[in-house]
Amino acid sequence: MSKNALKIATIGGGSSYTPELIEGYIKRKDELPIKEIWLLDIPEGEEKLSIVGEMAKRMVKAAGLDWEVHLTLDRRAALKDADFVTTQFRVGLLDARVKDERIPLSHGVLGQETNGAGGIFKALRTIPVILDIIEEMKELCPDAWLINFTNPAGMVTEAAIKHGGWKKTVGLCNVPIGHTKQAAEKLGLTEDDIFVKYAGINHFHWHRVWDKEGNERTDELIDLIYGPKSEAESHLKNIHSVPFPYEQIKDLGMLPCGYHRYYYIEDEMLKHSIEEFKEGKTRAQVVKQTEKSLFELYKDPNLDYKPKELEQRGGTHYSDAACEVIASIQNDKRTNMVVSVENNGTINDLPYDCAVEVSASVTAHGPENYNWGKFPPAARGILQLMKGMEETVIRAAITGDYGAALHAFTINPLIPGGTMAKTLLDELLIAHKKHLPQFSDDIKRIEETQPETVSYVEELMKSN
Amino acid sequence: MSKNALKIATIGGGSSYTPELIEGYIKRKDELPIKEIWLLDIPEGEEKLSIVGEMAKRMVKAAGLDWEVHLTLDRRAALKDADFVTTQFRVGLLDARVKDERIPLSHGVLGQETNGAGGIFKALRTIPVILDIIEEMKELCPDAWLINFTNPAGMVTEAAIKHGGWKKTVGLCNVPIGHTKQAAEKLGLTEDDIFVKYAGINHFHWHRVWDKEGNERTDELIDLIYGPKSEAESHLKNIHSVPFPYEQIKDLGMLPCGYHRYYYIEDEMLKHSIEEFKEGKTRAQVVKQTEKSLFELYKDPNLDYKPKELEQRGGTHYSDAACEVIASIQNDKRTNMVVSVENNGTINDLPYDCAVEVSASVTAHGPENYNWGKFPPAARGILQLMKGMEETVIRAAITGDYGAALHAFTINPLIPGGTMAKTLLDELLIAHKKHLPQFSDDIKRIEETQPETVSYVEELMKSN
Amino acid sequence: MSKNALKIATIGGGSSYTPELIEGYIKRKDELPIKEIWLLDIPEGEEKLSIVGEMAKRMVKAAGLDWEVHLTLDRRAALKDADFVTTQFRVGLLDARVKDERIPLSHGVLGQETNGAGGIFKALRTIPVILDIIEEMKELCPDAWLINFTNPAGMVTEAAIKHGGWKKTVGLCNVPIGHTKQAAEKLGLTEDDIFVKYAGINHFHWHRVWDKEGNERTDELIDLIYGPKSEAESHLKNIHSVPFPYEQIKDLGMLPCGYHRYYYIEDEMLKHSIEEFKEGKTRAQVVKQTEKSLFELYKDPNLDYKPKELEQRGGTHYSDAACEVIASIQNDKRTNMVVSVENNGTINDLPYDCAVEVSASVTAHGPENYNWGKFPPAARGILQLMKGMEETVIRAAITGDYGAALHAFTINPLIPGGTMAKTLLDELLIAHKKHLPQFSDDIKRIEETQPETVSYVEELMKSN
Amino acid sequence: MSKNALKIATIGGGSSYTPELIEGYIKRKDELPIKEIWLLDIPEGEEKLSIVGEMAKRMVKAAGLDWEVHLTLDRRAALKDADFVTTQFRVGLLDARVKDERIPLSHGVLGQETNGAGGIFKALRTIPVILDIIEEMKELCPDAWLINFTNPAGMVTEAAIKHGGWKKTVGLCNVPIGHTKQAAEKLGLTEDDIFVKYAGINHFHWHRVWDKEGNERTDELIDLIYGPKSEAESHLKNIHSVPFPYEQIKDLGMLPCGYHRYYYIEDEMLKHSIEEFKEGKTRAQVVKQTEKSLFELYKDPNLDYKPKELEQRGGTHYSDAACEVIASIQNDKRTNMVVSVENNGTINDLPYDCAVEVSASVTAHGPENYNWGKFPPAARGILQLMKGMEETVIRAAITGDYGAALHAFTINPLIPGGTMAKTLLDELLIAHKKHLPQFSDDIKRIEETQPETVSYVEELMKSN
Repeated sequence: MSKNALKIATIGGGSSYTPELIEGYIKRKDELPIKEIWLLDIPEGEEKLSIVGEMAKRMVKAAGLDWEVHLTLDRRAALKDADFVTTQFRVGLLDARVKDERIPLSHGVLGQETNGAGGIFKALRTIPVILDIIEEMKELCPDAWLINFTNPAGMVTEAAIKHGGWKKTVGLCNVPIGHTKQAAEKLGLTEDDIFVKYAGINHFHWHRVWDKEGNERTDELIDLIYGPKSEAESHLKNIHSVPFPYEQIKDLGMLPCGYHRYYYIEDEMLKHSIEEFKEGKTRAQVVKQTEKSLFELYKDPNLDYKPKELEQRGGTHYSDAACEVIASIQNDKRTNMVVSVENNGTINDLPYDCAVEVSASVTAHGPENYNWGKFPPAARGILQLMKGMEETVIRAAITGDYGAALHAFTINPLIPGGTMAKTLLDELLIAHKKHLPQFSDDIKRIEETQPETVSYVEELMKSN
Repeated sequence: MSKNALKIATIGGGSSYTPELIEGYIKRKDELPIKEIWLLDIPEGEEKLSIVGEMAKRMVKAAGLDWEVHLTLDRRAALKDADFVTTQFRVGLLDARVKDERIPLSHGVLGQETNGAGGIFKALRTIPVILDIIEEMKELCPDAWLINFTNPAGMVTEAAIKHGGWKKTVGLCNVPIGHTKQAAEKLGLTEDDIFVKYAGINHFHWHRVWDKEGNERTDELIDLIYGPKSEAESHLKNIHSVPFPYEQIKDLGMLPCGYHRYYYIEDEMLKHSIEEFKEGKTRAQVVKQTEKSLFELYKDPNLDYKPKELEQRGGTHYSDAACEVIASIQNDKRTNMVVSVENNGTINDLPYDCAVEVSASVTAHGPENYNWGKFPPAARGILQLMKGMEETVIRAAITGDYGAALHAFTINPLIPGGTMAKTLLDELLIAHKKHLPQFSDDIKRIEETQPETVSYVEELMKSN
Repeated sequence: MSKNALKIATIGGGSSYTPELIEGYIKRKDELPIKEIWLLDIPEGEEKLSIVGEMAKRMVKAAGLDWEVHLTLDRRAALKDADFVTTQFRVGLLDARVKDERIPLSHGVLGQETNGAGGIFKALRTIPVILDIIEEMKELCPDAWLINFTNPAGMVTEAAIKHGGWKKTVGLCNVPIGHTKQAAEKLGLTEDDIFVKYAGINHFHWHRVWDKEGNERTDELIDLIYGPKSEAESHLKNIHSVPFPYEQIKDLGMLPCGYHRYYYIEDEMLKHSIEEFKEGKTRAQVVKQTEKSLFELYKDPNLDYKPKELEQRGGTHYSDAACEVIASIQNDKRTNMVVSVENNGTINDLPYDCAVEVSASVTAHGPENYNWGKFPPAARGILQLMKGMEETVIRAAITGDYGAALHAFTINPLIPGGTMAKTLLDELLIAHKKHLPQFSDDIKRIEETQPETVSYVEELMKSN
Repeated sequence: MSKNALKIATIGGGSSYTPELIEGYIKRKDELPIKEIWLLDIPEGEEKLSIVGEMAKRMVKAAGLDWEVHLTLDRRAALKDADFVTTQFRVGLLDARVKDERIPLSHGVLGQETNGAGGIFKALRTIPVILDIIEEMKELCPDAWLINFTNPAGMVTEAAIKHGGWKKTVGLCNVPIGHTKQAAEKLGLTEDDIFVKYAGINHFHWHRVWDKEGNERTDELIDLIYGPKSEAESHLKNIHSVPFPYEQIKDLGMLPCGYHRYYYIEDEMLKHSIEEFKEGKTRAQVVKQTEKSLFELYKDPNLDYKPKELEQRGGTHYSDAACEVIASIQNDKRTNMVVSVENNGTINDLPYDCAVEVSASVTAHGPENYNWGKFPPAARGILQLMKGMEETVIRAAITGDYGAALHAFTINPLIPGGTMAKTLLDELLIAHKKHLPQFSDDIKRIEETQPETVSYVEELMKSN
């Protein structure tokens, strides 16, 4: 890197997140010698691209910078000679997420965008697209870094590195950022005062915390965050913050991530989701509303800064993390960040060539992972299950093999096996027909032989 | 081995299975130079020991053999100088199994004697006892082979080898025997005509089948047993034979074992078990009845052979497998059997020092495992989860750590996490109080602070 | 397999070993329904092929069998529809072996046909040829078993399996056969009375021995074979039988193979070889003489059985082992044999996809390895070095990379590094120019810039 | 850490290196709140301790610091409540090193203080002592960090961590420091401009280099340092700088460390050492002279700074590295350093629980290793051999097992096997009798049965 005139291309540039990304660049203007920012989207996203793109231009201008902001539907033009490519696209837009969530919930099964049936289908739709993009990158910008924050970030990153062969891929997530802030706050320290070390896979990692005196504070934090005295408070805010079982977390000896709730306290999480479903307030439905309001705001020709409302969107810090990774690579800053990268033995319990999410020092030549080693059995086994499931999903996404997809459903701990797995799989295939060309034969078979599946999906989606 | 005057001791000699064991020895009388058979039981089992022991004596006599059959409550006497020690004891007798099954089912959760909450509690009760026995064996019969068929056979065997340090332990199960018979039958071949290779852990293994022409027949068997045409028949007999999802098994590329139903088609299995529960016909309840009738039969002073009725007991072939292992060790027969033994890298995906259930050639110096190597990801991950769970259970059994037990519950795929896991754990601790001295502090705490837990268990057990 | 009309093709059919092979088939005539035996050689070997081939026909006829024996120079005709392909060719014939041995020894460095510089060069010449053969097999006999006993058998087998992709390859060696016979003899037992388990790589393996009473006899054998009392005798026969250092072997706790002498007692072995070199009696020179006499014998039109003299050739039992592997596959005999096959985790200390030499039960679908697990550090490290060296040689053989070849020389424990390694490498490249097309550029460079290298080789070879 | 009044104890405080250590502390006086420095030595070293200790006091005083400098022969007093313990002792003083080098060289075999027979014997003498020290530390300063730079640093560190159970051990070496300086210099960059990543074991590691633009510069450095054009210069200075074989290093793709010369170009190194031996100028002999002069200098009551002459001693930077590790732990500086620590999977090719020498970020809670992963086969195998050899040496050091020691000699690539290994082993045992109590039985046996061994050693040592 260390070029003087950076070109950064963003796939899915019409996203409501774009202002955070632009703000992140502006904050780092002294570190990032940007010349061109390319915001790319697909025809269906043209209007949003135009709204948010114009706002991006206003933000850059207001910051007194001469960066070029290009809005385009031409992917080749966006990728050509890019130094960094960031991805924040959503195949099928938010409507696809609505289906990912509502179809499983209609059967009383968790549908969640990165976990369970929803996450699997998001992977099935996204992986072929990221592999396509990589094929173009090989031709148009063979030295670029790919910064992925499209979910499910772990599986997409693994597909990019292992199957696309793009070693210069870094996957990002905002979840660790939140946990680090929380740890510092609970200990009454600044983030600089602690060393937090994460390991696992995307949305399924644990962390340990040390202070500057060299003392490990993990166990104390378990008490502070999940102990008997802490529960009362966190209870009140949101059922999502259902407390983890304290004794189990004590036994674990590491701090879980928020998404572990789906696995450690599945029942409570499911109950909560079903309520949301019944009220027509699944996450996707809520987000759709938020996005609508955001784009209304973005239309204001006087708005030239990231509005506070964006933070309610969730996923905050994501884009800022992307900017920090870019700045750290560009300047060899060696920032301690949490990234999804090739394992290469960082976690001994997982395959050498899979993607893991771990703490790393981000250098000019990419992340240098801090070695983790082995997990204790109670954490190891369930992590290995999740990775085996992910690998099966990726295989299904690439081959379009129905049996592989069913197998992934069967072993996913959030999906009941047997008849239910097959029902859900068939309905989601029908629902996402347009974005799953690799499964076209099986979708045709279902359409022809299971009319009840087709009508179930149609009915359900009407009620949206 | 190759001694001329064998002493075989059986822990839990008062079991209804004993006649099968005796029959197995008699069938192999030319291979087994038995001098003494010692049947050991605890005071609570004295009556059953007396009944079945007398019958054993009649069987030996009817066979024209001069073997001594000793009935005793003195464990040291039974173990003293034994060449083989077989274990078939059940801590807490069948009443404990009733609790293992009925408490979870009363909450709509699977309780099964080797899987789920039931299996975990059977392990918590049994492991301290097997470790006690081993301590005595070190003193009294340091060269003996320990042939374990006490369930959960995998965890008990791992505890014996890894924690007890008794390397000469072989765990046995009848499940593979049935699958081998089935494979031969479906292919229209004899068992000698096929080579069946198993790998996994107890009640969670897969197998592949080859014929004498060197062709692998696994895929064909998947079609024959689980294919669309096969389902109709197996449907009718018993809901337990709920068909596996054909496409998933095809994708797996290996034959599952019957117990995989609990994991691959959990919903259907759960529904069936709940029905049995409601009808007061859980497996333990049925078995109690069967046993009662068996012991009535055994009382008949004219009965000197294994009655046909024993086969309905389930678990048939178990004891015969034990006899064959003994004969194969004694005579270096090198029989190809499926055994629970130390992994030592046979399955690369599992810890080196854990117990696995694999095909082996049983030699005079014990089983020589056929190398298996690695599993494909879809099978690998869920197998690794089960092993991580098992290791956590064993740790809980040895330390009596409540957090470890809760952790095992939380990650067990048959037990919902969160509040339900804790509820079940507490109730089962109360129910099995007598046989869980290592948990006495926590049991006392529950008794003192959760009277509703105590009364729930009491009420439920009354209704048995 | 289990075909009724087998076709067996032998690459290098003009070898002096062929009569042993034919005898092996004849001994197993009831197990092997042979229809055609094809003996293939290259034009340079046509005369030998004709002599030994006619003798093979006489042997078959004398046995009263109607097998067709075909002699051919047409590889495609030999391979077409073959069921088994055995390889015993030697690229460059015995003259190449003379160079492999004499060039290193002229510098006081061990040259040995499977170890050291000689073995490396044999691999460099042979691997491209075996890969060529496999390409033809893919077209002409895609279901055939490849039984390799061309040295260095380990590296050739690894190249065939890993780089050629021919999974149905079995490498064979006669060394374990001799050690098993020795173990039985020393214990006063028959071979059937003991269970011998080997593990390592070709010409670098160890073994352990058990008897039918289940007792391990390894340590006792170490005393019997290498102990203080045993040495005197073995001393006298042949300096090649230089005793291993007793205390080291005791510490090892396993029985070494004869070739370990080159590594464990390098000095003594080197001294002996240098003496042989000075007397013009290197192994290759001796063997050339033996072969000459053998072919004189074979010309006798009345000779229709394997002459006793063949046993002096060394390498006896090799062909018989090949016949036994074929018979065991054909009949699912499950013979316990020592074979070079894909590791697949049999030895945990070596790469999963490399070739290892281990004990296996040879079934109709090929060898089922007995799991070995891990070695203790003192054996593990040196074994791993040898494998790393082998992998480097194979890479050099395939790519023709000079640096890779030099690297292999540098790390081979029998070759001094630095200037000497380079000198030897260059001289051997010049000497074997004709058979190393992959190194042609570097050979040309040496010819052009190092005339002294060329003339050294010429002079040395004159003196042969 | 982060205490306000540090106590640092140095075992072997009478060493000529001590002034560098003191200088290192003084340079970091703002980072190190030192209260007490304890210099410990044994009675034989009392005079040197007094000389160098007084000088240390003068240095501290000249720096205007109020640190207490204690000189003592009482180990318990030195260890009591220490925060850091550094070790620089030499069991048997330099006279032992003379024997380590001269005995092997008298037979034409490399004797080197960390490699070959010399290194093995230094380990055999040192490991029992470090384990003794650790036992006292458990009692007297259970929270202290042990900073070891006693050679062979890798084996001593592994013994401390794995066998002593002292996890807070960091081994140090000055070799990487020199290579990093060299890399920066050759590239015309500062050390801050490059990222150098090391992996391997002590005195047997490789490194790769990147610049701030993210480009790997390793291959370029191979050309600059070992390429055809570079050789001329480095040739001239010192035969020790014999060039590595360029093509092999190119194939390796990593930069070797200086000590690799003993393995990659053994012949040339051996020749050079034999010359030194003949001239009575083995390294130990030269160092003895240097030390003598140094202590003469140190006696000067006006000398209150580290004299330039110390740098000729070799081993420069060692002590400074120790000071930097202490400062980095004390202040959570996260300096990127090369340390010997527990592997924990950092290098996948080596045992999980062994010691490795790798790049790490040194935090308040100790080194966080950068993950390395796997080596290519050509480097992997020889590294694994060295580790297997080290593990065997450590076992011999702890158990005093003669067979284990002979086994270590046999597999060490710098020691010829067979008779020579035994001869060397016996002579060195005799020579170091006083410092090898664990081998006393075997030493007695040799004395009684091999008088020629005893007299050989006596004669040789006379000629020193």
